[in-house]
Amino acid sequence: MALEHVVVREIDRAPAEVIERLRQAGVATAHEAAGRTGLVGPRVLPRQDGVTIAGSAVTVLSHPGDNLMIHAAVEVCRPGDVLVVATTAESAHGMFGDLLATSLAAHGVIGLVTDAGVRDLATLRELGFPVWSRAVHAQGCVKATPGSVNVPVVVAGQRVRPGDVIVADDDGVLALAASVAPAVADAADERRANEEAKRARFEAGELGLDMYDLRPLLARLGVEYVDRLPDGDPR
Amino acid sequence: MALEHVVVREIDRAPAEVIERLRQAGVATAHEAAGRTGLVGPRVLPRQDGVTIAGSAVTVLSHPGDNLMIHAAVEVCRPGDVLVVATTAESAHGMFGDLLATSLAAHGVIGLVTDAGVRDLATLRELGFPVWSRAVHAQGCVKATPGSVNVPVVVAGQRVRPGDVIVADDDGVLALAASVAPAVADAADERRANEEAKRARFEAGELGLDMYDLRPLLARLGVEYVDRLPDGDPR
Amino acid sequence: MALEHVVVREIDRAPAEVIERLRQAGVATAHEAAGRTGLVGPRVLPRQDGVTIAGSAVTVLSHPGDNLMIHAAVEVCRPGDVLVVATTAESAHGMFGDLLATSLAAHGVIGLVTDAGVRDLATLRELGFPVWSRAVHAQGCVKATPGSVNVPVVVAGQRVRPGDVIVADDDGVLALAASVAPAVADAADERRANEEAKRARFEAGELGLDMYDLRPLLARLGVEYVDRLPDGDPR
Amino acid sequence: MALEHVVVREIDRAPAEVIERLRQAGVATAHEAAGRTGLVGPRVLPRQDGVTIAGSAVTVLSHPGDNLMIHAAVEVCRPGDVLVVATTAESAHGMFGDLLATSLAAHGVIGLVTDAGVRDLATLRELGFPVWSRAVHAQGCVKATPGSVNVPVVVAGQRVRPGDVIVADDDGVLALAASVAPAVADAADERRANEEAKRARFEAGELGLDMYDLRPLLARLGVEYVDRLPDGDPR
Amino acid sequence: MALEHVVVREIDRAPAEVIERLRQAGVATAHEAAGRTGLVGPRVLPRQDGVTIAGSAVTVLSHPGDNLMIHAAVEVCRPGDVLVVATTAESAHGMFGDLLATSLAAHGVIGLVTDAGVRDLATLRELGFPVWSRAVHAQGCVKATPGSVNVPVVVAGQRVRPGDVIVADDDGVLALAASVAPAVADAADERRANEEAKRARFEAGELGLDMYDLRPLLARLGVEYVDRLPDGDPR
Amino acid sequence: MALEHVVVREIDRAPAEVIERLRQAGVATAHEAAGRTGLVGPRVLPRQDGVTIAGSAVTVLSHPGDNLMIHAAVEVCRPGDVLVVATTAESAHGMFGDLLATSLAAHGVIGLVTDAGVRDLATLRELGFPVWSRAVHAQGCVKATPGSVNVPVVVAGQRVRPGDVIVADDDGVLALAASVAPAVADAADERRANEEAKRARFEAGELGLDMYDLRPLLARLGVEYVDRLPDGDPR
Repeated sequence: MALEHVVVREIDRAPAEVIERLRQAGVATAHEAAGRTGLVGPRVLPRQDGVTIAGSAVTVLSHPGDNLMIHAAVEVCRPGDVLVVATTAESAHGMFGDLLATSLAAHGVIGLVTDAGVRDLATLRELGFPVWSRAVHAQGCVKATPGSVNVPVVVAGQRVRPGDVIVADDDGVLALAASVAPAVADAADERRANEEAKRARFEAGELGLDMYDLRPLLARLGVEYVDRLPDGDPR
Repeated sequence: MALEHVVVREIDRAPAEVIERLRQAGVATAHEAAGRTGLVGPRVLPRQDGVTIAGSAVTVLSHPGDNLMIHAAVEVCRPGDVLVVATTAESAHGMFGDLLATSLAAHGVIGLVTDAGVRDLATLRELGFPVWSRAVHAQGCVKATPGSVNVPVVVAGQRVRPGDVIVADDDGVLALAASVAPAVADAADERRANEEAKRARFEAGELGLDMYDLRPLLARLGVEYVDRLPDGDPR
Repeated sequence: MALEHVVVREIDRAPAEVIERLRQAGVATAHEAAGRTGLVGPRVLPRQDGVTIAGSAVTVLSHPGDNLMIHAAVEVCRPGDVLVVATTAESAHGMFGDLLATSLAAHGVIGLVTDAGVRDLATLRELGFPVWSRAVHAQGCVKATPGSVNVPVVVAGQRVRPGDVIVADDDGVLALAASVAPAVADAADERRANEEAKRARFEAGELGLDMYDLRPLLARLGVEYVDRLPDGDPR
Repeated sequence: MALEHVVVREIDRAPAEVIERLRQAGVATAHEAAGRTGLVGPRVLPRQDGVTIAGSAVTVLSHPGDNLMIHAAVEVCRPGDVLVVATTAESAHGMFGDLLATSLAAHGVIGLVTDAGVRDLATLRELGFPVWSRAVHAQGCVKATPGSVNVPVVVAGQRVRPGDVIVADDDGVLALAASVAPAVADAADERRANEEAKRARFEAGELGLDMYDLRPLLARLGVEYVDRLPDGDPR
Repeated sequence: MALEHVVVREIDRAPAEVIERLRQAGVATAHEAAGRTGLVGPRVLPRQDGVTIAGSAVTVLSHPGDNLMIHAAVEVCRPGDVLVVATTAESAHGMFGDLLATSLAAHGVIGLVTDAGVRDLATLRELGFPVWSRAVHAQGCVKATPGSVNVPVVVAGQRVRPGDVIVADDDGVLALAASVAPAVADAADERRANEEAKRARFEAGELGLDMYDLRPLLARLGVEYVDRLPDGDPR
Repeated sequence: MALEHVVVREIDRAPAEVIERLRQAGVATAHEAAGRTGLVGPRVLPRQDGVTIAGSAVTVLSHPGDNLMIHAAVEVCRPGDVLVVATTAESAHGMFGDLLATSLAAHGVIGLVTDAGVRDLATLRELGFPVWSRAVHAQGCVKATPGSVNVPVVVAGQRVRPGDVIVADDDGVLALAASVAPAVADAADERRANEEAKRARFEAGELGLDMYDLRPLLARLGVEYVDRLPDGDPR
């Protein structure tokens, strides 16, 4: 039974060049390349503009308002990792601020994702330490209750396993199993090339209806074209 | 009965100079000029800062997570239009991204308003294509279910008819019937002049209580002035 | 009984130098220095980036969608005050815009905090008048119903008394009783010095586990360290 | 321009026997029969169990927390009507309680639907006056601001026109244009007969996959059947 | 400064007969009698039907997901008290269940109000121990972090002081300062008599417009009466 | 890569007597016995009172507003199973009603849990088919988009694997891995016995402070006992 609280020291990470290619793809393209799986829900928002990161997830499961396990997580992180913090119940506590960011950055961690809150936002921006969170809230934490590091967690509806590749940008956060990351990176590269071609055609004015051959589908679905809505239409 | 799915090709638009005057007024002033009607609810937020647009609404009604009808809408848009996308039930899907923005921009569309989600936000900002949405979410769409183009829809509690003048800025989104837009534009012009005069008086320190003659109203409503709250006041 | 609507003219304010030291501390540090009390809930958000203010609260209690009492509050404000607006029931109305901001600024008020909405956001930013609000919404107000000025109110779960020191920045809003503000300012100063020392140690790579001596606590709480999760772990 | 506040005395109602047949159909079946249009959003909930009503909508548009216009609406109601109350901005005020229910019942009104709150719930249940509302909240109202009676309103995302047939039950609330109500009632009757036949087949164990011939669709959509998920599936 | 965690043993309670009269009045009437103050927000809901209680508040302030202080509160409760539990940040934890209910009932406590969650709901109903809560959630608690008993707290936007008279029924929860409770009870008695008279007049068909003399107000506010909305009305 | 849509026919279920013992324990006790893991979030609510079920999860992952895959799931269900329906993005559609309930019941399925909506609630209650859902909403579904059956899903923040033991009652929904269910059932049995003993002691008036020996902890945490709050306490 899974009764115990545990800190797991070792996790399997995807290769650095795979992670880098997924960063270049960004969240939306990598999500498409992964068969539209892996997205963290839209309540977890970027707290800075224009930053894209990708790294391996070190996960933390904490009691709401208790950041003890975040401290415990630091020493199992490696350069390039992303800390992912979930709580055992919904929480808006500011579980992460500038001191923890300084500590993580000193160990090479490149960003944080949490389903709870962060604080010291102005300083985090000055430090250039990017965060994606559900809330910004200064409410302070205790260090009193046990939790776990590097167990699977759920963040805003998305399961995140230790070692998952995390991609995060202005669109949100994506988590991909390390085992599928290389194939997703390949698919994302292909997709980006493909999207360039499509973009050129859209820029030239071609319609999606024609590009994707959707007119027969519209007809089959019973969508009718009229010049005007009839008088007395009840809508 | 309104059972069928339909694409309506022609809509009535307000005159361009009326639309431009409403853009100059902005959402708050135009809303006041329209008798405080027409506001889209505050859950639809601008996804960029400092942009004001005004244009004619081309409306789309889609199944959640299905952007087929957005593609169908492109060819009925004209330069200066604003695409307004509603769903048949609540949705946070990213129903609109950079490729569709490229397509719309190629056809002269100047912005998008949706009660669902958008994605590729960084690229949309680079493209200068402004959006107002309920969510930012990369979750991808299917093209499988029928819907309608240019029928009346409801966006965040506000009915939007095809051809409505849409004004959108940092304060949100306003929809005005094309038939009343000229009168609203006139009222807005007047109001702006009026507000300038008021602003000058406020800058000089005049109180609203005096400017609007509110002291008699306060007295009539039983509002009392005291120097201090009495001890033991239960508040 | 507290049946009457009242405007209270005089309130007790904390000393200006205390307020200034609390501003320099910012919300998160001052909140810690105050024993982790006084935080307004995270639904009240800054509507500009990178601004920190501190001042004395002049409070307003209004009917939803009615800004009569905000006008009544202006003349009891003094330079350096912060207006704090609550409503008798939940509201997203835009109860505050550029004209009221102009009026308040002319009387020396340095910012506004509200559990309702604001509007004219672009102009407020141009004016440099900072606001913290629950919503941005252009919906206009009436001036028809009575309320109170300078009575205790609740804003997003936090009681705010007239004369409280309000500190507001990118992290949110804090309210401190004027009577405890000097002691909190002292504690905040001490805390800032202390945090500088900690920051340096974190930058050097020291772990929080060691700095706060948390390893014995983890052991006492039954947190186990393992190299790998066992196969078949049900998580 | 629609600047004025207005009470409209006369509205067009659907025939009583049409309304009764829609009541017998209930919300879900009538909604299907109407081409899946007309549903009020799910945040408006029944405040009693097991009651179904149908009647003609008399609509009210009020300022939040102000029930003046509900009083104004009573005398334009006729026996069998349903009062539908919207507010100009979001509100959870208890805008309706036992005295207004007594008044409406005395004039033959059979129920109330509101996007705001109700109160005196225990008494409403004793009176047998059914309500569908967004909230239950005792917060009292003023009678101070103008509004309208019998103008189109939006309730939880659904436009409701005066005279619409309102059907409400444990599933929520439906609004149908009076002009289409007869055709919808016919379609609903047909649908109910049809559903009985389907129900018998489902009771006998027949699968929807076979009844609706969905197996070819599943195949066309690429849905694969396997006995077991492969080891290492990343889900 | 308010840094310390404290259990306050003695509180001032209102007289029992005052509390009983407020119970008979119920939440809505007592709230009106109190000048429309004191209501807990509508997110705190009754978890049983048809129960009204009134008693003196013993308050608890806890860390989210930690029920240590609820245990500490039991011995300062007296028969007839109502336990009111707030948390230092938003929480949906099930902080209260059947064992604590048994303990409280054994000490004469008559109900519980909390801005967090409860669990064991079926058993609580069997025990006849009424609860008003923000959530029902089985998530278990720790007993690890300090808090306070009998300090003022905020529950769903309403300040509750130790010793406040709590009235709770199907409409929600009301908190009244003990010092004003006798006057409120008197006003509530009067109001109930008054409402009976009004109810009889409403039952006889009299309109609120006439009973409250609202027609002149409607005219003054510019509300117009028309038989039909004009064609082309933009609403 | 997990790109394909799949229906998995065979899943591993826990023994029937284990499931029955977990049903007798109920959600709160089984959750405790499982080390406080496995709870579905509190937004998924029972739609009937006083029903407890336990069974093996057959899981469905659907596009919002599309119930094709629910039909596909019926034939892989066995008597005693519980259907668990998740969507690829947030949805309040009524994805389940009386016909599907009839179909499931005919195949022995004993209840449904969904993070989306249900409809035909009155009929579901008549049928005695219990449901736990996020919403009640009559909005109809299409059968147009692919999904999966018997893959792991996330429901309101909780991962549910095919074959998990689902326990659901008035407190919500719990999901336990089949592999740990026997041990959890044993722990739950023990816990129930233990709780009976505690309940008797609580009934006799014993305090939790003494039963759990919490007084030394309170002292260690710095909780002070006072008779009265000092005057001027800033709370």
